Amino acid sequence: MKSRENQRTEFKEALAKIARETTDIIRRDDFPKSIRPEFLKKAVMDYPLRDGKRLRPALLLWTCGLFGGNPENAKFAAAAVEIFHNWTLVHDDIIDNDDFRKGLPSTHRQLANFAKAKYNLRENDAETFGRNHAILAGNIQHAWAVNMLSKTQASEKTILQLIVELSSLGGRDLVCGESLDVEISSKKWSQIKFRHLLQIAELKTARLLQFCTFSGAKIAMDGKKSDKCRLSKILDFAKFAGMAFQLKDDLLGVFEDRTGKPVLSDLSERKPTSILLETVRLAGRKEAAFVLSLAGRKGFSKADVAGVRDIASACGAERKCRQKAEKMKNNAIAALAGFPDCEFRRLLLNWMEYVLERSR
Amino acid sequence: MKSRENQRTEFKEALAKIARETTDIIRRDDFPKSIRPEFLKKAVMDYPLRDGKRLRPALLLWTCGLFGGNPENAKFAAAAVEIFHNWTLVHDDIIDNDDFRKGLPSTHRQLANFAKAKYNLRENDAETFGRNHAILAGNIQHAWAVNMLSKTQASEKTILQLIVELSSLGGRDLVCGESLDVEISSKKWSQIKFRHLLQIAELKTARLLQFCTFSGAKIAMDGKKSDKCRLSKILDFAKFAGMAFQLKDDLLGVFEDRTGKPVLSDLSERKPTSILLETVRLAGRKEAAFVLSLAGRKGFSKADVAGVRDIASACGAERKCRQKAEKMKNNAIAALAGFPDCEFRRLLLNWMEYVLERSR
Repeated sequence: MKSRENQRTEFKEALAKIARETTDIIRRDDFPKSIRPEFLKKAVMDYPLRDGKRLRPALLLWTCGLFGGNPENAKFAAAAVEIFHNWTLVHDDIIDNDDFRKGLPSTHRQLANFAKAKYNLRENDAETFGRNHAILAGNIQHAWAVNMLSKTQASEKTILQLIVELSSLGGRDLVCGESLDVEISSKKWSQIKFRHLLQIAELKTARLLQFCTFSGAKIAMDGKKSDKCRLSKILDFAKFAGMAFQLKDDLLGVFEDRTGKPVLSDLSERKPTSILLETVRLAGRKEAAFVLSLAGRKGFSKADVAGVRDIASACGAERKCRQKAEKMKNNAIAALAGFPDCEFRRLLLNWMEYVLERSR
Repeated sequence: MKSRENQRTEFKEALAKIARETTDIIRRDDFPKSIRPEFLKKAVMDYPLRDGKRLRPALLLWTCGLFGGNPENAKFAAAAVEIFHNWTLVHDDIIDNDDFRKGLPSTHRQLANFAKAKYNLRENDAETFGRNHAILAGNIQHAWAVNMLSKTQASEKTILQLIVELSSLGGRDLVCGESLDVEISSKKWSQIKFRHLLQIAELKTARLLQFCTFSGAKIAMDGKKSDKCRLSKILDFAKFAGMAFQLKDDLLGVFEDRTGKPVLSDLSERKPTSILLETVRLAGRKEAAFVLSLAGRKGFSKADVAGVRDIASACGAERKCRQKAEKMKNNAIAALAGFPDCEFRRLLLNWMEYVLERSR
């Protein structure tokens, strides 16, 4: 048995190789070549070619391996899921009014800057121009993902099943999760239940990961009898890993100084994350009022930050959320236990560790 | 041979039947049932269930008949293209900031009204809420169209071809047309050529009609050898009909008082349509300056309207645009000439007449 450190190195090298190959497929694909105007083509290519870990392609390809398939046959599906993920980011950034993505201007911001320089538009008009064309760029990426998926090396029957699942798990459920997530900011925190947040995490984060494992498995089982029991297990793995990720990410939002995000940015945006909601629910009246009084603020003093952290720990909200995340993670590990130990199972376990460790 | 009037009655009855059946398929489909939150589900169902002529489904189904297929097999594809058309309308209405669609509030407006009533949001926040969720509603409709298309009664190979074409002709080309159309409002009119407008019409309007004829023909030829020559003819029919429609629509924008749109609304929105562009190009310096001086105005006097119409006629722009539209229409008719006279060819010719007659 390989040492933990060896496994880790093996994992990182395999992930880097997938990132290179996925980027290559995306860069060389014909579909976007005919896009006009030129600035729209650039916008469509932008996010999919920005540096990324390519975690979703890796999940898809290694699941294919776990089910005894040749990951090479799944490479177009892997590129498709990455492109799909990116259109949701382009639209999310419009919706959340985020000006940056991976350290560079977001698509709508980029296009607004372009319009200002090229057409001499005023700030407001440039922003509208940027937003409108970013909506369109995301739409083309959506179609591109479907087109890319159709190139998968599998029977037509299997490819069709993948396209149907992408439309359901990705195009519908994930988008519902996004809508619920936006809606919740308009609600009173006292009306929101913890299970609502879990539901959002399942739809918004876990569903596309489930699509990754579904496709990887289906491509591997192409032409063979479908192993429904294992398919359901790997879907569970993706679901629990996704939900554990969301809970951990919420915790990081309070307890870590994350790169690229200001401290307590969820609180600034009045976003009821799992840890914030539990804190307000479990803390004493005075402490809860203090936390709520900070919601919507643009910046926080060191004392504010320390205060929120102390309250979240002292009232038991932190422990509860960590336990919940741990439970989800253990469920994910349990779902993988039914598969024989092999390179791909090791890679998938390391994949989850990595996902749960990294800060947003 | 049936009289023109009989043909017309036959056409209208057949169109109404298609409208009923398409609405039925859309209303009963399972895909949207699981959409949450409830207001998003309502938004997704809204446009696809609003009264509509269902011109695209008719084009698809009658092309299937023309190629010797059973239109019954194409009914899901017909519903799919209608849903696809509707997501582009939802996003178009956001982009054009249109508050109405078929006499009712547009999706983003509807959702903004909902947010104001339900969450007591201020006007600005309600508008943002409406716009964001309308983006998401359109995205789900996009995925729904793909999902619906996958139900087509044809071989998996044929269905996959349809999905690939929908992603290219609809998800890419049509959206490029929209982008070019939005961009052009930022350009100086003197930089815009007539052929740019024709290119936009081909992408934005004709491509989805081409998809309709492609699918109808492909479903009819399922399992048989593909008749490439006829396929290319019916694609031409759709292309020329679509471009003729756009030219006529531009003419109506100047010469008719269209229902639902204020007089000269294109000029209000500084939108260089084919007739307006030609007028400014062909008219004398003083007349062109007069027309341009009206661009961006919110309302027009009767004298302004009469003035623009007179200039457009006197300078020859009207005649040129009418001739161009007529030429496109004749090209479309010529493309159908290679098919034997039959019920479906008659229906398609009546379809084009109808499309070219009706005001926007």
